[in-house]
Parts: sequence; structure tokens; C-alpha cells
Amino acid sequence: MRLRNVRNAREIMEAHPERIILDPKAHRGAWKARFGNSNPVHLEIGMGKGQFVQGMARLHPDVNFIGMECYDSVAVRALQRVLEEPLPNLQLVRGNALDLADIFDAGEVDRLYLNFSDPWPRKAHAKRRLTHRNFLERYRAMLVSGAEIHFKTDNRGLFEFTLQHLNEYGMTFEELSLNLHAEEPEGNVRTEYEENWSAKGYPIYRLVTRFR
Amino acid sequence: MRLRNVRNAREIMEAHPERIILDPKAHRGAWKARFGNSNPVHLEIGMGKGQFVQGMARLHPDVNFIGMECYDSVAVRALQRVLEEPLPNLQLVRGNALDLADIFDAGEVDRLYLNFSDPWPRKAHAKRRLTHRNFLERYRAMLVSGAEIHFKTDNRGLFEFTLQHLNEYGMTFEELSLNLHAEEPEGNVRTEYEENWSAKGYPIYRLVTRFR
Repeated sequence: MRLRNVRNAREIMEAHPERIILDPKAHRGAWKARFGNSNPVHLEIGMGKGQFVQGMARLHPDVNFIGMECYDSVAVRALQRVLEEPLPNLQLVRGNALDLADIFDAGEVDRLYLNFSDPWPRKAHAKRRLTHRNFLERYRAMLVSGAEIHFKTDNRGLFEFTLQHLNEYGMTFEELSLNLHAEEPEGNVRTEYEENWSAKGYPIYRLVTRFR
Repeated sequence: MRLRNVRNAREIMEAHPERIILDPKAHRGAWKARFGNSNPVHLEIGMGKGQFVQGMARLHPDVNFIGMECYDSVAVRALQRVLEEPLPNLQLVRGNALDLADIFDAGEVDRLYLNFSDPWPRKAHAKRRLTHRNFLERYRAMLVSGAEIHFKTDNRGLFEFTLQHLNEYGMTFEELSLNLHAEEPEGNVRTEYEENWSAKGYPIYRLVTRFR
């Protein structure tokens, strides 16, 4: 997600170091300490404006949530949302998925959420998709054994790619829906994007997967 | 597919032994001889009224097609279609997928088509779905090594089940489409069911899979 540039985004974020972390590599191996408890850590990569990760943190106070976003102009919107309703179990991170190995130590994350990731529709850009094996290897390194990855998208091409690619990679398909809102599971927190897209009548695809 | 009972269905079929085989077990190990050539054999299980298998036979004269159907009242409709346009590379079979091991010898089939199979939506009936592992084992026994299984359905639940079940079974996903008609591949032969359902705006799902 990219948004119009927000003036002074960096200054606004720097003024709230208790809510958003701009130097996440400095916290490698110390995320539980950051939250001050030993609850599981669930990470969303590409949180956008943060509606999902905040909704999850509100629903699950016994889980520590980290919302990560690589664009300043987007991360600052999530920060503004969080400042209106601060939650002790939610931290934001301005960071890039390419740097995961420098941000999280082995087994430091208990679950990963990927919602409406950039589809990178051109084949030449397949490596940039967040379900490409280049990223899967990064996820495996930071996740505890048996951890789930929860993936939602409205993008048919990205979901087709993901199913084929993860099957080839040997991952499990724990839960699979080709129209999530037809029988919406209790506790499904919708992203803003999900609400807009579903309202237009398009199906939302969802997969819960694990490494074998 | 079940249709209204056709009077004298059995008699009509018995009058055309050159087009429809009512005792397929008698042909085990001798299917190429039946066609009188050594071309590959492609089987459709559940041909319904036969529009697909006849269309394929017309398009691919160098492939021997077998259309199989377990209900007399349906098989006789396919026979009537075939009698209007007889093709040397198409044979019909009145038979049941449960008997595959008695109908085909190992490696006697080069490709399998499953189109709009009965979804058996109740969980208690999952074993009856044609992509259940009980059937997969039967398919593996009769297919040549590396053979493709081509699966199409409009039924979301059946496709979700199939993707999960085949992934667990360790099968490849060679081609996968969540909306076949959005970018319909050249040479896609539509079944009657497929045409009706697609015209109503529902997506057609398709998977090409292989045993590893």
C-alpha cells in the first residue's frame, strides 16, 4: 500500500518511540522484553493503516501484536490510529520484510499475518510477492516450529500463485476458503481493504498454512 | 448427475455394443485393442450427457477417449449424442469408479478428466468425492507414471476440499485457476453444466495435478 506523502511523517513517528519502532534491528532477540511479558508474539507484515492489527490486539489482549509497514507515509497513518486508542499489547514497526532476519531472532515470532499483500502481477516481479519462497525461508527462520501463517487476499492471481507455490514448497493447507465472507468465521477481523473489496461483491480468499 | 429415468435405457444401450460397453471389466488390459491403435487413452469419469468427451474426441483425433458414467439414465443420453455423430476415437462405458481396478490394468490410462463431479457436501460423505484419497489410490494404479488429472468444478466446497486433500496427499498443482473463464485457455471444451453455471456469473475452478 502506498499513500500520498504525509508531511513530516518521520518527525511524527520519531515523537512516539513508545508506539512505533524505527530501528527494529536494535530489538532483535528482545521483543518479549519490549512488551514486558512472555505472551506469544503475532506479527503482521504490511499492516497498511493498521485497522486489522489494532482490531486483533483489542480482541486478544493475551497476545502481543506487532504491525510492520515499510512505507513511512502508511506507517504514520497506523500510528495516528494507535495514538487514538493505545493498547499495551500493540507495537508498530517501520521496517522491511527483506530485513526480517536482522529484526527477529530464530523462534521469536509465534504467528504471521499477511493481508492483501501487493500482488506484483508481472511474472518478472514474482520474487517480490510475500508468499514467494525467498520470503518463506525468512519466515521459517523467525517462526517457532509449527507456527501458522494466516494469509488473506482479494487478488485471484496472487492466491493462485500462493496455492501452487506453497504446495510445491511442501507447506500444509490447514484452512482454505475461496469466499471467506460467504461463511465468515467468528473472530475474523476485516482490514479496510477487505471491507471495500468485499462490498463490491468480490470474493476474499484465505489460507492458513504451516511449514512441515 | 441423475436424470429422469429413460424407459428402455438398458435395451437402447444393448443395441449399440460398438459405441457403449456395458461389461467394461471384460476389456481390462485390452483397451488399445478396442480402439485398434496405440494412441494414448484419456478417460473421463462421470461424463454426464457426454458433451465434453465428445468435444474432446472431435478436437483430438489422435487420442482415444473413454467416457464413463455410472447411471443408465445418463449414459443413454450420451449414447444418443454419440449416435448422432459417431467418432472412431470415442468409446462410452457404463461403469462405476469404484470398479476401476477391475476395468483398467496398471498404466492403461494416460490422462484422467473429472468434470463437475458430485460434490457430496456432507462431511459424512467425503469418501464419495472423486478427489478423495480412496479414489486417488485407484487413479494412481491405472494411470501411467507422470499422467495428469484434469479437474473442473463450479462447487466451491468441493474445490476447497480438493486443494487441501491433494496437497496433503503430496500431489503437484501444475495449473490452477480460480476463474477459468476469466482467461479461458484455448482448447477448453465446456461441459453443458459448465456453460449453464458460468452464464449465471459463477466462477469455474480448475486444477491440473499429478502424482509425485
